[in-house]
Amino acid sequence: MVKSFSQELRESAREIWAGYHTHPFVRGLGDGTLDLEKFRYFMIQDYLYLYEYAKLFALGVAKSRSRERMQMFAGMAYSTLNGEMGIHRSYMKRLGITEEELDATPAALANVSYTNYMLAVGYAGDDLDILVAVLACAWSYQEIAQELVRQNPEAPSHPLYGEWVQGYISEAYGKTVEENIAGVDALAEGISPERKAYLTEVFRNCSRYEAGFWDMAYEQLV
Amino acid sequence: MVKSFSQELRESAREIWAGYHTHPFVRGLGDGTLDLEKFRYFMIQDYLYLYEYAKLFALGVAKSRSRERMQMFAGMAYSTLNGEMGIHRSYMKRLGITEEELDATPAALANVSYTNYMLAVGYAGDDLDILVAVLACAWSYQEIAQELVRQNPEAPSHPLYGEWVQGYISEAYGKTVEENIAGVDALAEGISPERKAYLTEVFRNCSRYEAGFWDMAYEQLV
Amino acid sequence: MVKSFSQELRESAREIWAGYHTHPFVRGLGDGTLDLEKFRYFMIQDYLYLYEYAKLFALGVAKSRSRERMQMFAGMAYSTLNGEMGIHRSYMKRLGITEEELDATPAALANVSYTNYMLAVGYAGDDLDILVAVLACAWSYQEIAQELVRQNPEAPSHPLYGEWVQGYISEAYGKTVEENIAGVDALAEGISPERKAYLTEVFRNCSRYEAGFWDMAYEQLV
Amino acid sequence: MVKSFSQELRESAREIWAGYHTHPFVRGLGDGTLDLEKFRYFMIQDYLYLYEYAKLFALGVAKSRSRERMQMFAGMAYSTLNGEMGIHRSYMKRLGITEEELDATPAALANVSYTNYMLAVGYAGDDLDILVAVLACAWSYQEIAQELVRQNPEAPSHPLYGEWVQGYISEAYGKTVEENIAGVDALAEGISPERKAYLTEVFRNCSRYEAGFWDMAYEQLV
Repeated sequence: MVKSFSQELRESAREIWAGYHTHPFVRGLGDGTLDLEKFRYFMIQDYLYLYEYAKLFALGVAKSRSRERMQMFAGMAYSTLNGEMGIHRSYMKRLGITEEELDATPAALANVSYTNYMLAVGYAGDDLDILVAVLACAWSYQEIAQELVRQNPEAPSHPLYGEWVQGYISEAYGKTVEENIAGVDALAEGISPERKAYLTEVFRNCSRYEAGFWDMAYEQLV
Repeated sequence: MVKSFSQELRESAREIWAGYHTHPFVRGLGDGTLDLEKFRYFMIQDYLYLYEYAKLFALGVAKSRSRERMQMFAGMAYSTLNGEMGIHRSYMKRLGITEEELDATPAALANVSYTNYMLAVGYAGDDLDILVAVLACAWSYQEIAQELVRQNPEAPSHPLYGEWVQGYISEAYGKTVEENIAGVDALAEGISPERKAYLTEVFRNCSRYEAGFWDMAYEQLV
Repeated sequence: MVKSFSQELRESAREIWAGYHTHPFVRGLGDGTLDLEKFRYFMIQDYLYLYEYAKLFALGVAKSRSRERMQMFAGMAYSTLNGEMGIHRSYMKRLGITEEELDATPAALANVSYTNYMLAVGYAGDDLDILVAVLACAWSYQEIAQELVRQNPEAPSHPLYGEWVQGYISEAYGKTVEENIAGVDALAEGISPERKAYLTEVFRNCSRYEAGFWDMAYEQLV
Repeated sequence: MVKSFSQELRESAREIWAGYHTHPFVRGLGDGTLDLEKFRYFMIQDYLYLYEYAKLFALGVAKSRSRERMQMFAGMAYSTLNGEMGIHRSYMKRLGITEEELDATPAALANVSYTNYMLAVGYAGDDLDILVAVLACAWSYQEIAQELVRQNPEAPSHPLYGEWVQGYISEAYGKTVEENIAGVDALAEGISPERKAYLTEVFRNCSRYEAGFWDMAYEQLV
């Protein structure tokens, strides 16, 4: 059976993604032992991240050459700003994180590096480049949450971290990921090997930035 | 009293805007004598235009450096794609314009020139450049519709063209225009004379493209 | 024999290009009857144009993913700013056009529309989009000058307009055009029909803008 | 005396720059004890870096609104590709680094992060943003080389590393740095405090990326 391009991408980053599941931050999310301060720091940084992440979909709208794709990207921007960020806003409240604290917290360098890498790829490239750049984040969060539940079926019921797990195993979130994957596979049809090599590099770089983001969160790096 | 920058812009294009109100297409919209084929052609071109216009707001989201401005631009994109386009979708139905016809109609060169000018300004510039580039269209449509009603209070009741007039004198549309103007004035505070001169050139160019758009519609230019 | 993509592009604009050769401005360049004021206006506008045109090659440098292509674009930028502009600088001197006059002359709307269209295509797209966008100008000037010589072998000796003709039939200029064509054909290998259709639209639009530029020059439109 | 904006930037990164001078890689360059393999790795990564760095100047050409600034950026691109890279090409030869080896060496993540950060800033911003983004690299290399000579007047005579030191204390290189600083100060005149804060953030981030680049070279990080 022929492998889809998204599967090729996933396999190109196999060893990087393996590290997510054993990462102490992720482990702690799943078994409930994660230090609250670390989670709080992660939430703030991830919230700052999501605003930059939404810019990628906005760039996708600007770069699309069909009304259909424009609407796909506009929908993804909407999901990010309203669906995924919903999880964050709920935690903001629970953890007492205010807009003022968000304004006063600079994005960590690992965070800045990741979002600006995606933005540079997006500005220089087209809609396929953008869909590949955002894929590692979208897809790996789903995989991580699903693996946490596989390892500990009680993970979604944890009083603090359960809501996070629930969000990323939800049907609504799953649909966003599916749309992203389907978009990559549709646009990648018939592309040249040179282009595939570049996109694989983008996906692997983003996967490495994901690893760096977990490190940043765990060690509360600035 | 000090003039706001938006007022300065408006005055810099005074003679160009004067031409809108006496344009045969606009006149025909107001007194109901406009040829239906011309209106139909305008509707199709304006619909194609609005998709490109929405890209400007998407670029604004991508280029904003504050969460507040991102949300402003996201809201404007939403208004364009759902509010203003609502008028168009209603006319599409009434005039029997299908998605297929839209796909088969190339954007006229006057249309292409206008939208790509704004996009080039937007890619090269920042959020203020974008707000100035989109202003001539947003503001002049309101002014045109208001002037049509002043000249002929029955204009909004015309069985065919009344809906167009109603759309652009509506409160909802007015709020979008106000937001655009307020955004320009807020961001223009303290900018250099050199920058003002450039933005005035952008506004005047867009005002000229507006005039060209009415010509294109009236003469059904390709 | 299989047609190259550049040949396909050329044929898609056949009727537009035919109009260049019969254009009164071009005719006047070839038989020496062109009004000096029209030529002077053209020179100023074309000089302003070339600075914007050079930006396209700069964007090509920024968007290239290989060192080889970066160098190709850097070389093209250099040729434009030093080779092609050499013709202009010589005429500036002969016609008494100063930097002050250039600064005081706004680019005509037909000029603004053309360059900003190319820039919008370039910002949104990649190196192939850029090479296609600049091709109509580069190639048609060569074809026009060659046709002028075919019709009137004395054209290159005309005391005023001969230098223009010489410049665009020169070997050095021919190499730039060849490089542009070869670049298009190399990068277009294996692209999808959808992408071809878009690039053909870009080439045809640019060809129409070329026609508009000759009109602008002949009628000294602002 | 009023501080220039470039001086403000320099001071905002004082503690980061202090670290450059005590960095083992830099120390080793100055006293000749640097491991050759580390230097070789640095040379390859820095060469890959310079191509991306040159893209910033190309973007500056594309985004400039005056012919004068376009020429400044074009000159800087030329200096980078021909002046600064001259140092590298000489070392490539001496160290037996071939084009093939360059092609086969992926840019390290610290390298990718730095260049794409600058590119994202450049695409989103204007000529001043670009000049600030490139400044940390240009200026700190000069300061580092000057400090090495101050500490060890024999540094420029070292058989291997002397050429590097000579390159960055040279008059030609100094002129490039001066031009960069002068450009920042000229364009920063009269900018708002909000804008200054953003540009300071850019300069500090780039300064941190510089530190990361020295770490990457010393530890040969991928």
